[in-house]
Amino acid sequence: MYRNTTCGELRISDIGKQVVLAGWVQRIRKMGGMTFVDLRDRYGITQLAFNQEVNAEVFDKANSLGREYVLQVKGTVEERYSKNKNMPTGDIEISVTELTVLNEAVTPPFTIEEDTDGGDDIRMKYRYLDLRRECVRKNLELRHKMAFEVRRYLDEQGFLEVETPVLVNSTPEGARDFVVPSRMNPGQFYALPQSPQILKQLLMVAGFDRYFQIVKCFRDEDLRADRQPEFTQIDCEMSFVEQEDILNMFEGMSRHLFKVIKGIDLPKLPRMTWADAMKYYGSDKPDTRFDMRFVELMDLLKGYGFSVFDNAAYIGGICAKGAAVYTRKQIDGLTEFVKRPQIGAKGLVYARVEADGTVKSSVDKFYAQDVLQKMKETMNAEAGDLILILSGDDAMKTRKQLSELRLEMGNQLGLRDKNKYSCLWVIDFPMYEWSDEEQRLMAMHHPFTSPKPEDIPLLDTDPASVRANAYDMVINGVEVGGGSIRIHDAQLQQKIFEILGFTPEQAQKKFGFLMNAFKYGAPPHGGLAYGLDRFVSLFAGLDSIRDCIAFPKNNQGRDVMLGAPGVIDQDQLDELQIKVDLKN
Amino acid sequence: MYRNTTCGELRISDIGKQVVLAGWVQRIRKMGGMTFVDLRDRYGITQLAFNQEVNAEVFDKANSLGREYVLQVKGTVEERYSKNKNMPTGDIEISVTELTVLNEAVTPPFTIEEDTDGGDDIRMKYRYLDLRRECVRKNLELRHKMAFEVRRYLDEQGFLEVETPVLVNSTPEGARDFVVPSRMNPGQFYALPQSPQILKQLLMVAGFDRYFQIVKCFRDEDLRADRQPEFTQIDCEMSFVEQEDILNMFEGMSRHLFKVIKGIDLPKLPRMTWADAMKYYGSDKPDTRFDMRFVELMDLLKGYGFSVFDNAAYIGGICAKGAAVYTRKQIDGLTEFVKRPQIGAKGLVYARVEADGTVKSSVDKFYAQDVLQKMKETMNAEAGDLILILSGDDAMKTRKQLSELRLEMGNQLGLRDKNKYSCLWVIDFPMYEWSDEEQRLMAMHHPFTSPKPEDIPLLDTDPASVRANAYDMVINGVEVGGGSIRIHDAQLQQKIFEILGFTPEQAQKKFGFLMNAFKYGAPPHGGLAYGLDRFVSLFAGLDSIRDCIAFPKNNQGRDVMLGAPGVIDQDQLDELQIKVDLKN
Repeated sequence: MYRNTTCGELRISDIGKQVVLAGWVQRIRKMGGMTFVDLRDRYGITQLAFNQEVNAEVFDKANSLGREYVLQVKGTVEERYSKNKNMPTGDIEISVTELTVLNEAVTPPFTIEEDTDGGDDIRMKYRYLDLRRECVRKNLELRHKMAFEVRRYLDEQGFLEVETPVLVNSTPEGARDFVVPSRMNPGQFYALPQSPQILKQLLMVAGFDRYFQIVKCFRDEDLRADRQPEFTQIDCEMSFVEQEDILNMFEGMSRHLFKVIKGIDLPKLPRMTWADAMKYYGSDKPDTRFDMRFVELMDLLKGYGFSVFDNAAYIGGICAKGAAVYTRKQIDGLTEFVKRPQIGAKGLVYARVEADGTVKSSVDKFYAQDVLQKMKETMNAEAGDLILILSGDDAMKTRKQLSELRLEMGNQLGLRDKNKYSCLWVIDFPMYEWSDEEQRLMAMHHPFTSPKPEDIPLLDTDPASVRANAYDMVINGVEVGGGSIRIHDAQLQQKIFEILGFTPEQAQKKFGFLMNAFKYGAPPHGGLAYGLDRFVSLFAGLDSIRDCIAFPKNNQGRDVMLGAPGVIDQDQLDELQIKVDLKN
Repeated sequence: MYRNTTCGELRISDIGKQVVLAGWVQRIRKMGGMTFVDLRDRYGITQLAFNQEVNAEVFDKANSLGREYVLQVKGTVEERYSKNKNMPTGDIEISVTELTVLNEAVTPPFTIEEDTDGGDDIRMKYRYLDLRRECVRKNLELRHKMAFEVRRYLDEQGFLEVETPVLVNSTPEGARDFVVPSRMNPGQFYALPQSPQILKQLLMVAGFDRYFQIVKCFRDEDLRADRQPEFTQIDCEMSFVEQEDILNMFEGMSRHLFKVIKGIDLPKLPRMTWADAMKYYGSDKPDTRFDMRFVELMDLLKGYGFSVFDNAAYIGGICAKGAAVYTRKQIDGLTEFVKRPQIGAKGLVYARVEADGTVKSSVDKFYAQDVLQKMKETMNAEAGDLILILSGDDAMKTRKQLSELRLEMGNQLGLRDKNKYSCLWVIDFPMYEWSDEEQRLMAMHHPFTSPKPEDIPLLDTDPASVRANAYDMVINGVEVGGGSIRIHDAQLQQKIFEILGFTPEQAQKKFGFLMNAFKYGAPPHGGLAYGLDRFVSLFAGLDSIRDCIAFPKNNQGRDVMLGAPGVIDQDQLDELQIKVDLKN
């Protein structure tokens, strides 16, 4: 061992000890006859002191060091003259008697500090240096700890972690697969799994009862900001359970994580139906750290000659507490915000509640004060509040616009504190959603999702209104997990396929494999999957999942550090019996 | 929940309890007015009793059940009339009052029993039914437990599990890569990792200090019996360590596993140099469950006119205790065994030690009794033993042949008990081995392996004799893990590349990426990787790693259950801008 202690653990009580440390040079300060070096390792930083009078040779050596040199030092723990209260080892320093340079270092392309001067691109190219920064490494330490605690909890609950294969077959419905040409089976391809959905259901057929896996999944999609082509799921499935059992089990897991990692006692999670989430928040993943619920104003504001409202299919408002102080310019900013093409509202109506309780709105010429007062009351608004109203001819679209406005107001009013957590279950998702593109009902979750038993009669009469035994766990407006109870009854499954527009032949072709397995005795089962990357990001208070991934890919799916993907040899292509066939 | 207890937990103390159970029908026995059904779940089997007189309706229902039907039953725990001492629940049965068929089952293609009538192929095709067999499921339960205990131990030792990417780049030197065409980067390919070797070394450069990962690795090789295209490694790396630190750390991990999983207190592991392993066992992974060491007989048996021996570069014998009783036919069988092309010996010389101590050999006409007696002494042979001797003109090849013979004798004499474990470290591997094919020295481990410091001068004079800081953990003749201390010094690395025959340009092209990273301050580091599949197989006493993998592939790399790999759509190929280009 090159050391007998680490750079994070020496304290005032260790004074006088002979120690051996190893680590990297964080900083060098030369002060005449004294030179101070901050030595860094994973565990912290310890100050090394070199005194010209005490040991001129070692002092000279110290003065020739550079940033990020790798050192081994021997010396004595001494009390510092000027203590640093900001670091755990700030009371002591090492009076160095022996200095060995284990490796020199060329100057890094950016500073290895909390506030680095390196931009995103260069930090990704030299990710192994970026990872030296404590703020980055901490995220990966957190990730390790969360994954370990997930395993500990699930192991204690009798779950078995079963590894499912990475080289599988192309799956029906869903995103695009990554594929892998098979050399031994020329002309054939493996696919990388988008999720182990079918395999975990097969494990239930196999009687495995409680399965989980922390597993890499792959989707070849065009990458948005917070997507990675490979990502990690906490994938879970249970047999002989109903929805209530799953919710309780995984609420318990989340409670365990919050307690052990964040020291937070999570209250019993509220449950919100999908219908209420859409009605009050315009989103199936409402950020409930703050209230600002939607209030529908159709009855109240129609019929006064304001044609925008009179013709609207939906009018809804939110009450921004204390925001009556907003200037005209700020409100214009909000109007521009909702009119951006990504949001697409036509305009924004506002109403200030003045100090005297009167309401001053942007549509005063259509509404008398008594109507505005009624609105104030309905909105639960008080003096000093700002009411913001959107309307539109498509209720769902307008709600989504209002949801964006609500989140923006939450940001502006500082209501979305990263250190505050608000968790809930969103339940009773619809079974189907209409696809304009496909001109048919599509499965909202996936085609094996079970309808709520009491809604089964509606399958014949009004399938679009059928609710599913499907659920999402939402934390701070982020869907961290979701799943469903699966259909285990072959006849019901057949009916669901019919509603989705599959002929029995098509259903057999697409899903026959799983349906055949079910013939051998499938238990009632259900499960869910968490996105580990998102879960860790939330706990770390990160804006992007990228920062909790050791070696992430960029928006072009490239690992700029490794230089992947890359061109491969003709020999390799020949062996695989494939050809590159560029279109232009 | 469909149950309030499982099929494995009810005991005589539970008599009188009302219970709800769910599971699969294992067996039905109809005995006049009584029908007995064995209900199975992951936790065990519980007998259900149906009495025509007590409840005719439920009795009739029970008589219409079939094998593998999925049931939910309610009833009372009662003491059995005829107890079954062979099962934990054998004292009780459930007098069933309510029976619900949760799912019917068609007759499975093989019996779901310990001794199934299903052959390998059909069991793999219906792996989800094969996994219902307790003997198969137990292996996966063991795998879960081992992986969890590995994580627990390493977490306690301060290791961080860091996920490295699956979509990486093609690596130099090594086996064939699986590749993944990139749609977003047409004409370019990712590779699946053969191991995270480079990434874990980068994590050391990043200061991660103690890394591990239980991780899927991929090799596109022609598959031998015990190889899978995807396999799982326990991959580990540490900084600021020497070989001794690594050996101690992972000996500790193995000790933890043996203790927690098998209840075995592992003694301090013996260490054997590679040279001794080759000398005494003719193998770098000796099975030390039994002794039967090689004894070199060159001095003793040369010069008596037996030209086979006189011209041999190596003559070595093993002493098979008590095998003098072998018949001529049995010995002929051994001769045939060593002459098989896979082994390739020219013949076998044997010598029996008779009850009176005289030695009777197959080469009596060349050797007088006093020479044979000297040999007996050298071999430590006693009355009743059988001495088996091989010779050849290539010492290494002959040793390997003798090793095969030794293992075969171990099998025949029952010395390779699967319930006995003999673990050791093999150390001091050579840095290089000569490749006839390439006509150059090749790295035995990999080109980043550090030479033993005391052998560094030999790099200039006799590189072939340089020993490496490389080590394997061997259990029962299986290499379960191996690794090395890495080179962190750029100049030494340069010299190693030269000896391997790389010009500086070639070295830069092949390994430049890692060498550049090292310029920023690489710590001394080293590590190792265990094969999890092999480790579990050993603990489970399996002949093949396949049985501890949930969904393994066959020798053609196919998953016959999923039907992977398969043909993909032309659309997919077009999007990827590749073409299948079959050679015939």
